[in-house]
Formats: sequence, C-alpha cells, structure tokens
Amino acid sequence: MTLSDGEDEPMTDRTFLRFAETLADEAAALGSKWFRKPIDIATKEDLSPVTEADREIEALMRRRIAEAFPDHGIFGEEHGQERLDAEYVWVVDPIDGTRSFVTGWPIWGTLISLTHRGRPELGVIEMPVLGERWIANSGQPGEFVTRTGRREICRTSRCRALADARFYTTSPLYFDDREREVVTRIMQSAATPRFGGDCYAYGLLASGYIDLVVESRLMPFDYMALIPIIEAANGVVSDWAGEPLTFGSTGQVVAAATPQLHEEAIAVLRR
Amino acid sequence: MTLSDGEDEPMTDRTFLRFAETLADEAAALGSKWFRKPIDIATKEDLSPVTEADREIEALMRRRIAEAFPDHGIFGEEHGQERLDAEYVWVVDPIDGTRSFVTGWPIWGTLISLTHRGRPELGVIEMPVLGERWIANSGQPGEFVTRTGRREICRTSRCRALADARFYTTSPLYFDDREREVVTRIMQSAATPRFGGDCYAYGLLASGYIDLVVESRLMPFDYMALIPIIEAANGVVSDWAGEPLTFGSTGQVVAAATPQLHEEAIAVLRR
Repeated sequence: MTLSDGEDEPMTDRTFLRFAETLADEAAALGSKWFRKPIDIATKEDLSPVTEADREIEALMRRRIAEAFPDHGIFGEEHGQERLDAEYVWVVDPIDGTRSFVTGWPIWGTLISLTHRGRPELGVIEMPVLGERWIANSGQPGEFVTRTGRREICRTSRCRALADARFYTTSPLYFDDREREVVTRIMQSAATPRFGGDCYAYGLLASGYIDLVVESRLMPFDYMALIPIIEAANGVVSDWAGEPLTFGSTGQVVAAATPQLHEEAIAVLRR
Repeated sequence: MTLSDGEDEPMTDRTFLRFAETLADEAAALGSKWFRKPIDIATKEDLSPVTEADREIEALMRRRIAEAFPDHGIFGEEHGQERLDAEYVWVVDPIDGTRSFVTGWPIWGTLISLTHRGRPELGVIEMPVLGERWIANSGQPGEFVTRTGRREICRTSRCRALADARFYTTSPLYFDDREREVVTRIMQSAATPRFGGDCYAYGLLASGYIDLVVESRLMPFDYMALIPIIEAANGVVSDWAGEPLTFGSTGQVVAAATPQLHEEAIAVLRR
C-alpha cells in the first residue's frame, strides 16, 4: 500500500479534505441554529465576548476530530490545547467574529486548519449565514464555494501598489497607539480603506475582490486557516516583519494580493 | 368611493406598499446580477464611487415610478430630482454601500421611501445578497423578511443606557475632526463599538440586535427610508440636535432603540 491512489495526490490529503468539509458543514449548521437567538454572553480575560454557541461548536468539532484522528493534536479558541507536539494538529475557531455574531451581523465564520509539523496545509473559512466557503489543501488550487454549490478557483487580484489597493481591517480599535499610527498611514495611502470583517476579508482577498488586509492581536486559531487559502490563490501572508506566521507569531498579520503590494505594505509597517 | 377598503387601512397605502415591494424585488435582481462582476467604477464630486450598477438600478426604479405614478416626484442618488414639490415624492438609493459593493462585500442595500408632504411614510431596506428586507408603512408594524419568506414584526431592544449599548457606525473616516471627537466618546462609552454597515445597521437596530447608530454626511436618499422602519419598531431617529430629519437636514443622524438611550447619545453629541 502506498500513500498515493494514483491521481498524484496523497490519499491522506483527500481524507483530511473531506473530513474538514464535513466538519465545516456540521459547525455551520450548529452556528446557524444559535444565530440571532437569545444567548448568554460572557466576557473573557482579554475582554472579548464568548457565547454558549462558541463553546458548543468547538466541543462538537473536538469530538469529531478525536473520533476520526485520535493521535492528532487540537488547538481551539475556547477549550484549549491537546497534544500540540503531534505530527498533525487541528487548529479551530468555532466563531471568528463573535462581536458580529452577538449583534446579529452575518459576517462571522468558522475556521478550520490542519497543521503538519507546525505548518498549515489545509484551511477552511466557512461563512454559515452567507452560505460561502473558502477551502484550500496542500498546494492544490483553493476553491470558493457558494450557497448554490458553485465552486470556483481562487485567484488574488493583480494589484501591485498601495495607492490602488482596496484595504480592510476589522476595527481601528484593535491596535495599540504605535500600531494605529502605521496602519493609519496605510489607510491614508490605500484607494479604498474599509472596516469590518474578521476572517471574511481574507477570503475576499483570496477571491480577488480586495487587495490588502492588515490586523493585529490575532491568535493561531484566527490566522492558521487563512494561510493555505491565501497562498493557494497566489497571495502573500506574513507577520508585519515579513516573516512566516507560526504558532509563536506576535499576532500582527498582513495579507496581500501580490508580492509587490506585500512588500510596499511591509515597508510602511516596519517604520 | 372612499379611500378605505373597510380594513381600517387606506387603499392607497396598500397600493404603495405592494408597489414598493415589487420595486425592491426588481432592484435586487438587477443589483445581484452586477455584484462581483467586472464593472466600471467612477468617482463622484464628493469622492464617493459610483458604478454602472448604481445608475442602471436607479434608472429602472425611476421608470417604474413614472409609469405607475406619473404625478409623483422622484429624488434619487444618481439621477437627481424631479417634481420635489409634488404631494408624494419617492426617495431612492440604488446601492447604499457602493464601497461594499465594489469590494465584493455583501452588506449593501437598496433604499426606497415614499414621502408625503416631506414626511417619510413608507420605507424599505432591501439587502439583495443577504436576501433580507425591512419594510414599514405609515404607522403599521414594520416587518423583517428573510430569504425563506419568513416575516417577523420588528421591535427595537429595550436598551436604555449607552454603557449597555451595541453601537455601530460605518467608518471613523466619515467624520470631521470635531465630529470624530464626540463619536469617539460614544464609542468609548458603549458596550460593543463596531464598524461597517451603512443602511444595514439601522435594519438590525429595528430588529433589536443592535441599540445605537451614529453617522454623519448622510443624504436624504440615505436616511429617508430608515425613518418609518425605525419608528414603526419603537426606535427614535433624529439629527444630532434631536430634531426630526427632513430634506434640509445636515446629514448627521442618530438612531436609538429607546428614547432614554437616544437622549443620552444626544447629550454627548451636542457637547
């Protein structure tokens, strides 16, 4: 027996991909059930909100992962880390955009990634209310899937200059003073500066609708799933110093449609 | 012949309501057709973007209004004003949130209102991509209609204090320095400050999911449709001085779930 089924694709990759899609389906169904319903909201140590829905969705995902791949590790936003030294580690965020979720705003997503020796190889951005999903798996072209089941290959835009860039960041409130100063420079230079979105902005970047996203204070469960999707679409994503994002990164993230735009953004962010 | 058909409702109101729903259906179909397609984007005098889609949707709406009600006035964002001295004037915005529209972001809407002697009596917020619509007509309860056809009566939340408020504004970039100063005070006092949304935030306010919206530089086609929807849901909407919004207002808008919250916001905005 070999790892390949003869279609130039390791069998395990396809297994992981199908599993991740099923996991996204289940998480989306559960999240949609809770959306816009009365729900208890607690405040975490970092002052961000968490709901019963975040906890239930993550518990479901962890159960499914443990059943299917008992030797894999798990790193989730709400219920912590298990076996981070395993060869494969699933990194999940049940509700990315909980502040949207609790204000009836449909722009929130479920993030799923599979890291292999610390490097994210598979990523899913699932938008349950919008019925949209981005998915990419180890070097295969990434796909954007809509409510009707239409699947299209993701390609970033060809935008090479900040002056032409459609720029998004979730909120100006999520930066410290020094960060806000450099991000303001980017906003002032960009063609279209916009706010909002959490994970959704990175999906639209992979699909070529926007060109640049800059954020800070992100955690591995916020950014791991985005990396394979952006890279498969020919985009570039890194920390603000231009270094690859890892489990140990600072949480400063910049994603760009092209290497040229990425380089121009990094030059501003490094100042 | 009388104006009533015996159901305690003037016949003309029902005619207008049905017409507005059909108009929203047609505008939504046309807008959805253009969304995420390659499109020419021009920049207007006020530096805001306008597309072929904005112009086509408004032209369609004006044609339909002129066919159905040739003696009514029309005030649209893209093609100007006709017969503003008529008893009834339709005020329409083909794409509220053109910056969202041109960045593939689904939070943009079509706004339709009918004013009677200058006062908005009927309002529609149509969200074509989300498949959501708010509609309210002269004192009747307003309704929130979803993709599945489910209709529910709108009621604002009971939030009475800024400290508990879920607050939205489209972008901190849409204020001058003095305005930004007072809005920053509101943001810092609110429980959940959020950005993004254009007309959508007002719809969610009418449905009780958020509590407060503050914006500036709005035009009659941006705010006329919101007024009947917010008022029918028991909310309060005015300019920053607490005065009713009219065709001649300054464009500063504050909408709140309750009179108490409205009063607290006005007290900050007036400083």
